Amino acid sequence: MKIGFIGLGNMGAPMAANLAKAGHAVTGFDLAAPVPEGVAAAKSIAAAVQGAEVVITMLPNGAILRAVADEALAAMTPGAVLCDCSTVDVESARAVAAEAATAGMGALDAPVSGGVGGASAGTLTFMVGGSDAAFATVKPLFDVMGQKAVHCGASGAGQAAKICNNMILGVTMIATCEAFALADKLGLDRGKMFDVVSTSSGYSWVMNAYCPAPGIGPKSPADNGYKPGFAAELMLKDLRLSQQAATGADADTPMGELAAALYARFVEEEDGKGMDFSAMLPRFEKRGRG
Amino acid sequence: MKIGFIGLGNMGAPMAANLAKAGHAVTGFDLAAPVPEGVAAAKSIAAAVQGAEVVITMLPNGAILRAVADEALAAMTPGAVLCDCSTVDVESARAVAAEAATAGMGALDAPVSGGVGGASAGTLTFMVGGSDAAFATVKPLFDVMGQKAVHCGASGAGQAAKICNNMILGVTMIATCEAFALADKLGLDRGKMFDVVSTSSGYSWVMNAYCPAPGIGPKSPADNGYKPGFAAELMLKDLRLSQQAATGADADTPMGELAAALYARFVEEEDGKGMDFSAMLPRFEKRGRG
Repeated sequence: MKIGFIGLGNMGAPMAANLAKAGHAVTGFDLAAPVPEGVAAAKSIAAAVQGAEVVITMLPNGAILRAVADEALAAMTPGAVLCDCSTVDVESARAVAAEAATAGMGALDAPVSGGVGGASAGTLTFMVGGSDAAFATVKPLFDVMGQKAVHCGASGAGQAAKICNNMILGVTMIATCEAFALADKLGLDRGKMFDVVSTSSGYSWVMNAYCPAPGIGPKSPADNGYKPGFAAELMLKDLRLSQQAATGADADTPMGELAAALYARFVEEEDGKGMDFSAMLPRFEKRGRG
Repeated sequence: MKIGFIGLGNMGAPMAANLAKAGHAVTGFDLAAPVPEGVAAAKSIAAAVQGAEVVITMLPNGAILRAVADEALAAMTPGAVLCDCSTVDVESARAVAAEAATAGMGALDAPVSGGVGGASAGTLTFMVGGSDAAFATVKPLFDVMGQKAVHCGASGAGQAAKICNNMILGVTMIATCEAFALADKLGLDRGKMFDVVSTSSGYSWVMNAYCPAPGIGPKSPADNGYKPGFAAELMLKDLRLSQQAATGADADTPMGELAAALYARFVEEEDGKGMDFSAMLPRFEKRGRG
């Protein structure tokens, strides 16, 4: 398939490289990052998308997505699909989809989970919003870049699923970290805590697959000095998107709101920037109550 | 084995009955509840515990446990073990263990998870604090009353594990419910939300085994009009124990604190009393932001 790929950073580069390796004709563009092996370099967004059946974007935020989409849609072949894999606000995803429809293009919002490791290994999960037809067109590419693509509903549903999942994730991480720090102070061994919680009603992906306590459970960023993994500032970004969406939809999300405030403090006032989001555990270890 | 059993309410009665069914000589006492089939009725705590090798208590709170333990320890045979299966504060558990030691008895704190269903079916999990010797003595009884007993450490470790687990559980339940309500308002289908989260980094016992949205996932109290199950007021009790412990140990637990406040509001000011703790979902459905 002929593919245009815009945004070749930590995530986009390995995704584009995997598509090229699988035999697709990928033309890439990024303002700053180099084009990975197997991908043809274009000098502009317009040049990257010309003649492509699918255009994939992987960008930092909704404002940049809107600007890139303006330029891309003007140069795309009618009937092509614009598939945005960035995590952005639901409103931007829906606005871009509406603009694509007006221009005679298909559109998908398809944010991912799995991080840089998943992008390199081709094991991402895609949460996808958009029409059945557009989903069917891009499905073979999701299968190359990842191992799972869930069609969640109409435009915006992919972003909604991602922020709901990550709101739960951020809250669960903080709760698990504060419980470990409480256990420490109550004299409960961390290994015993893991044994009990990972097999009881407190189990979660955080505890069972990504344990924030070093030396316990499967290998996680805690075992590597809390190097990301999934950086605290990216969790903060996702939590802010969830709160923006909740405000727009008039939804009460007190736990999500507190998680956003705690990650903001950790990243912006404490030492959290550049640390894995599970580094909340050493943060709580050091703190007293209140 | 000769067993004294104090506290024959919703939990204690089936536990004592299971011990009797397994061939143990169980003598029971309760201020109000009847003695279950197979259990000999005693007229006082002292009469129930005389000659018993193990005395099991299942009581509403730490103050009642302390009072019962005073009376029981004075009448128990030296070398017997007092095994408290109630969920109480860590301090009371440790105080009772110290008193037992002074009196020449063993002591275990062994709170359970699994609820009334688990007590009847003999599938409880015990989280146990106390000496190796006392644990070894009572282990065969845990195996009758439940399917799993984790020796968590010294006295108080069982209560610590229970409140840490349930603090995570209470937080995760609220976060999952607010995420479902947000998903509704963003137009994301609940079934799709379950598909994504239950297989992604937001997975948890709450989502995967006890889903608060009716008609989704395995059968849960949500499918039965939110009848408990695990009542919101019991979750509130456990969350308050966790906050009491955190205050005593100078541990910072902002998520646990917010969860306790939200369950307090739900139980004491809204319609939460007598509802399952997952009834937070219909609560959030009805609410606007803030």
